[in-house]
Amino acid sequence: MIVIMRTGATEEQVEAVRQHVAGLNLNTIINRGVERTVVAVVGATHPEQRDGLLRLAGVLDVVPISRPYKRASREAKHQNTVVRVGDVEVGGPEPTVMAGPCVIESEEQVVSTARAVKEAGARVLRGGAFKPRTSPYSFRGMGEEGLRLLRLASQETGLPVVTEVMGVRDIDLVARYADILQVGARNAQNYFLLDEVGRVDKPVLLKRGFAGTYEDWLLAAEYVMAAGNQDVILCERGIRTFETYTRNTLDIAAIPVIHHLSHLPVIADPSHGTGRWQLVIPMAIAAIAAGADGLLVEVHPDPDKALSDGAQSLTPDNFRRMMDGVRAVAEVGRLNRNAVSRLGVR
Amino acid sequence: MIVIMRTGATEEQVEAVRQHVAGLNLNTIINRGVERTVVAVVGATHPEQRDGLLRLAGVLDVVPISRPYKRASREAKHQNTVVRVGDVEVGGPEPTVMAGPCVIESEEQVVSTARAVKEAGARVLRGGAFKPRTSPYSFRGMGEEGLRLLRLASQETGLPVVTEVMGVRDIDLVARYADILQVGARNAQNYFLLDEVGRVDKPVLLKRGFAGTYEDWLLAAEYVMAAGNQDVILCERGIRTFETYTRNTLDIAAIPVIHHLSHLPVIADPSHGTGRWQLVIPMAIAAIAAGADGLLVEVHPDPDKALSDGAQSLTPDNFRRMMDGVRAVAEVGRLNRNAVSRLGVR
Amino acid sequence: MIVIMRTGATEEQVEAVRQHVAGLNLNTIINRGVERTVVAVVGATHPEQRDGLLRLAGVLDVVPISRPYKRASREAKHQNTVVRVGDVEVGGPEPTVMAGPCVIESEEQVVSTARAVKEAGARVLRGGAFKPRTSPYSFRGMGEEGLRLLRLASQETGLPVVTEVMGVRDIDLVARYADILQVGARNAQNYFLLDEVGRVDKPVLLKRGFAGTYEDWLLAAEYVMAAGNQDVILCERGIRTFETYTRNTLDIAAIPVIHHLSHLPVIADPSHGTGRWQLVIPMAIAAIAAGADGLLVEVHPDPDKALSDGAQSLTPDNFRRMMDGVRAVAEVGRLNRNAVSRLGVR
Amino acid sequence: MIVIMRTGATEEQVEAVRQHVAGLNLNTIINRGVERTVVAVVGATHPEQRDGLLRLAGVLDVVPISRPYKRASREAKHQNTVVRVGDVEVGGPEPTVMAGPCVIESEEQVVSTARAVKEAGARVLRGGAFKPRTSPYSFRGMGEEGLRLLRLASQETGLPVVTEVMGVRDIDLVARYADILQVGARNAQNYFLLDEVGRVDKPVLLKRGFAGTYEDWLLAAEYVMAAGNQDVILCERGIRTFETYTRNTLDIAAIPVIHHLSHLPVIADPSHGTGRWQLVIPMAIAAIAAGADGLLVEVHPDPDKALSDGAQSLTPDNFRRMMDGVRAVAEVGRLNRNAVSRLGVR
Repeated sequence: MIVIMRTGATEEQVEAVRQHVAGLNLNTIINRGVERTVVAVVGATHPEQRDGLLRLAGVLDVVPISRPYKRASREAKHQNTVVRVGDVEVGGPEPTVMAGPCVIESEEQVVSTARAVKEAGARVLRGGAFKPRTSPYSFRGMGEEGLRLLRLASQETGLPVVTEVMGVRDIDLVARYADILQVGARNAQNYFLLDEVGRVDKPVLLKRGFAGTYEDWLLAAEYVMAAGNQDVILCERGIRTFETYTRNTLDIAAIPVIHHLSHLPVIADPSHGTGRWQLVIPMAIAAIAAGADGLLVEVHPDPDKALSDGAQSLTPDNFRRMMDGVRAVAEVGRLNRNAVSRLGVR
Repeated sequence: MIVIMRTGATEEQVEAVRQHVAGLNLNTIINRGVERTVVAVVGATHPEQRDGLLRLAGVLDVVPISRPYKRASREAKHQNTVVRVGDVEVGGPEPTVMAGPCVIESEEQVVSTARAVKEAGARVLRGGAFKPRTSPYSFRGMGEEGLRLLRLASQETGLPVVTEVMGVRDIDLVARYADILQVGARNAQNYFLLDEVGRVDKPVLLKRGFAGTYEDWLLAAEYVMAAGNQDVILCERGIRTFETYTRNTLDIAAIPVIHHLSHLPVIADPSHGTGRWQLVIPMAIAAIAAGADGLLVEVHPDPDKALSDGAQSLTPDNFRRMMDGVRAVAEVGRLNRNAVSRLGVR
Repeated sequence: MIVIMRTGATEEQVEAVRQHVAGLNLNTIINRGVERTVVAVVGATHPEQRDGLLRLAGVLDVVPISRPYKRASREAKHQNTVVRVGDVEVGGPEPTVMAGPCVIESEEQVVSTARAVKEAGARVLRGGAFKPRTSPYSFRGMGEEGLRLLRLASQETGLPVVTEVMGVRDIDLVARYADILQVGARNAQNYFLLDEVGRVDKPVLLKRGFAGTYEDWLLAAEYVMAAGNQDVILCERGIRTFETYTRNTLDIAAIPVIHHLSHLPVIADPSHGTGRWQLVIPMAIAAIAAGADGLLVEVHPDPDKALSDGAQSLTPDNFRRMMDGVRAVAEVGRLNRNAVSRLGVR
Repeated sequence: MIVIMRTGATEEQVEAVRQHVAGLNLNTIINRGVERTVVAVVGATHPEQRDGLLRLAGVLDVVPISRPYKRASREAKHQNTVVRVGDVEVGGPEPTVMAGPCVIESEEQVVSTARAVKEAGARVLRGGAFKPRTSPYSFRGMGEEGLRLLRLASQETGLPVVTEVMGVRDIDLVARYADILQVGARNAQNYFLLDEVGRVDKPVLLKRGFAGTYEDWLLAAEYVMAAGNQDVILCERGIRTFETYTRNTLDIAAIPVIHHLSHLPVIADPSHGTGRWQLVIPMAIAAIAAGADGLLVEVHPDPDKALSDGAQSLTPDNFRRMMDGVRAVAEVGRLNRNAVSRLGVR
């Protein structure tokens, strides 16, 4: 940590900082500049120690000099992580598209969607059995019966499945049916849940919170990894900004930024990221062009009648058109990803 | 719901809207304006039905005309709700100040803080035993031992206690020790947790999410109320904006807005709302002046040595100064609250 | 406009709304729904009239049903606008890349950059002679001498030039040297300037404000168009959000959204949109893949020594690499643009 | 500036940093820590120099250690600035309320409002003759005739007047009629305008931009002060956030923050800050309680018929009620202001 004294700070104040740091069993190097004095704290510091320093008289600011995440950082591991689910790779040379209905409604719906998306090139089936809904009066999913139908669609098509786990008590249940456990945006800082999915032997798809910084997000991944599970897939799904025409603002820059800061694969969810199906196709393609390791996309055989998120679901026809675009930009996306991954970490 | 057609929408498109609505067992009234046609949907609609309408050709927008929250709305209950904990009232004539350490560290710390804040006028003791921390490597609280110390400080002082419950599996444990269950900002959309605290027979203090709109927040309250618990205290704790000098942007307008929209009491947390103790006092007083029903404030006997959030904790001396200001503006705050409560709901 | 009454509004209150509207020489259609009454205002309304209605007792909300921009709207003109500058087209079949130094520093710098970017495929030269700087102590550009050097580089290479005009009094001067007048993000709501560039016979490149909604931005274009100049190029350059790792959050969804709402061409500025050169290449390519009509990119022969924005400038080598990616995704981008342009306007 | 090297940076990379700094005629002190090396740059640095350092290999981050504003900083001047207009003080012991119509509509309207607000305790009359309007089709004010009526109302009541100047070419005109020149939120980074009002011998009321950080805002003040005019009044008027129920989010914490960082007076505009008159009163009072040096409030004799911003205008009756509250909390506000002003600057 670097302690910046304010202009005119006294020698006594600088000495008090030195003693405070000594009390933490750390050393200091003191630089007396033209405008102000700066005290470098030498040794392994703890984020909490910043608060005590900030309170000392004469201190202007305290700047941390290390990233708070360790296992998730590219400083810790230079090679890109590839998460494997059966013979599907996330983070490998090809982008991995995960598609399916927002919410599972019937065997017919999920199986027909699974077939359609597989045929168009999806490698993972998505579908919701437990749904976080802003209103308690909205349909919250079929529960275990939905999981059973999802598994059935998986058996019919050979696609592995990803589905959301909303709480600690459901982890065992969901893990019995799912190949990848999804932690949703609303649970992006539900630390009990992150701890527990970190103890499961299945990959975790971790969405960014509505208002989560890159650092918050990587620290959420750190929770999972610190608990023992290194197979984390990050998923950008849009942040909340002043612009309300779109459901969220899909932050495509998150893709190269994460490839800079971390070795973990990162995919994009253009369905929640925009909230309007007309925007899903161009944004999906843009994400892949920027180097995304994959996509998570909502597809419904008849979106007008969907029980949830119809406005943002693609029809199978639209999904095929999207996949054509994805294939056309995949090579450029790979070059972008690799170029960023090789650059220095900041 | 109101369906707004775009300019130049054809008669066939309007007819398709009419038929779609008829298929939902609802009626329509069609207004042909100068610029465009507008279709009013008559009957009890469901938020989900908006999506299907939005997808129809020729539809520009679909505007809901009812609030999605019911029990939390002032339209449902005109009288202000007063939440009672023993002989303490939240939402009554006097503002109720809840104060104590961010995290419980020792018997000495929590008991001495409890005595100091009680003497200065606090009516509820706060203290964290389970702490949500952005980093998995930060101190996460003493757990049940912390709860035990909190209870002990309560017995010493007679102050009821509020403390955070971070997950469903801890509810029983926390409810054994606490008088008010706090749901934190990071769990503001943890719907399983909201459901479950809705089944507990203790008041719930519900913080606004970092990026929660007023509607999101009232819908979170609706979850608790729909599950059976009507004793909800809302707590504004700052939202995430582009300004990063302060930890969050404390949205004081939330206080009169909630008093407009809802009958529930609303308090403010200026400690998390600013992140800097120098700002806590003026912001606490401003919140009361705007009509807040109370405050949640971090106080520590020796903030320089606090294990969490030292930079935003008041010393007991500062807390006394804050309470002087609170008392000085309480009468004005009550007038503001009552004036807003009487005004029409929007 | 649609006036939504609150639940329990009285007949007298509805009648007062009807009379208020009649006083504005407009008609009403009154729909009495199950939960509440809704009054549709028929006739050409004015945004200002909303305020008066909102104040009436019993009124819950007033919803506008027309877009406030007219000339900029795709409802007014279905065909995409192509802006022409000599033989360069913006909005035509090929994306148009505008590149050059942030700030003009010397003849050698601007001419060598112009040659390098032309060779790599840029069609327009950018360069700043008047620079808006957050600090009054930063270098604010060479002024007219910079414009002269920009013109010289244009003559050397045949590239038309775009440069910023910062105020009304400089319009004549800048227009003597520039082919396209740029209005910067900080002036996105400088209405005097918008009015005046609307009277110039040169295309205007209009950046989105830091905190400008799509509607604000299109209304800024409307100012220019209402004053007589229909040749407006919109430029997405990132918005301000809570994420501060990047300089701004480049909102790539703005590209398909603008193609939905408007017939005007829209380009992206990934340099200001990210603030870090490592991110410029993937974001430039993503923008084109999403259907952008072009790019505005900062290139400097020696970014380490740039007087402004060195951290976000590409070297000529990096720029060539970017152009390779742009060409690889241009066809997909065109398909995306055309698909969105054909869809209904919302 | 502090240059933070990344973990594993080589000796050659550290040496390259040293040489780069030497090339800027500055010295370095190199601290080799456990995790990483940190290079302190000694001497007077320039913000631009950060970019070049950031590009060097092995550099993780570059942290500035001085504030970019000088004259506006409390480090430069400890004593609070009091701005005087005739016998009115802004920044003195009493809060100064400025009130009047959003836009001047007629002699009757402005004179009657002036009388009403004076009687209730306002010390300055506000009124718009030139109005920045988001839509080019909205009423943009009466122009010089409006200024004449404002002056007339000033003569009738003895109140000095504040009114907005929208562009450089109007400064002379507006300065002939106004006592305080207002620079609006949309012009908060119109640097030509800031430069020019810095050359006028009248106080400047400088609104914060929609998306302006505290630093942006103080740098805007620095423009005015660097040009020679030290009489700057800052005005918080709400920032743009994800919450759209209110017109803006009034950031009351800005008041103590500015009192921390700067010696300049700061007032609040609760009318634009909320956009709804019901919220104006509690927010005005909260701002004063937090230590604001004054208010800027919209008052209209008949808000239902106002040509602009009727929804947020107070009636004279409401204004009187607001002033009662202001007086009740003024003493507490003064204590808050003084306490913050005395604290160390950060």
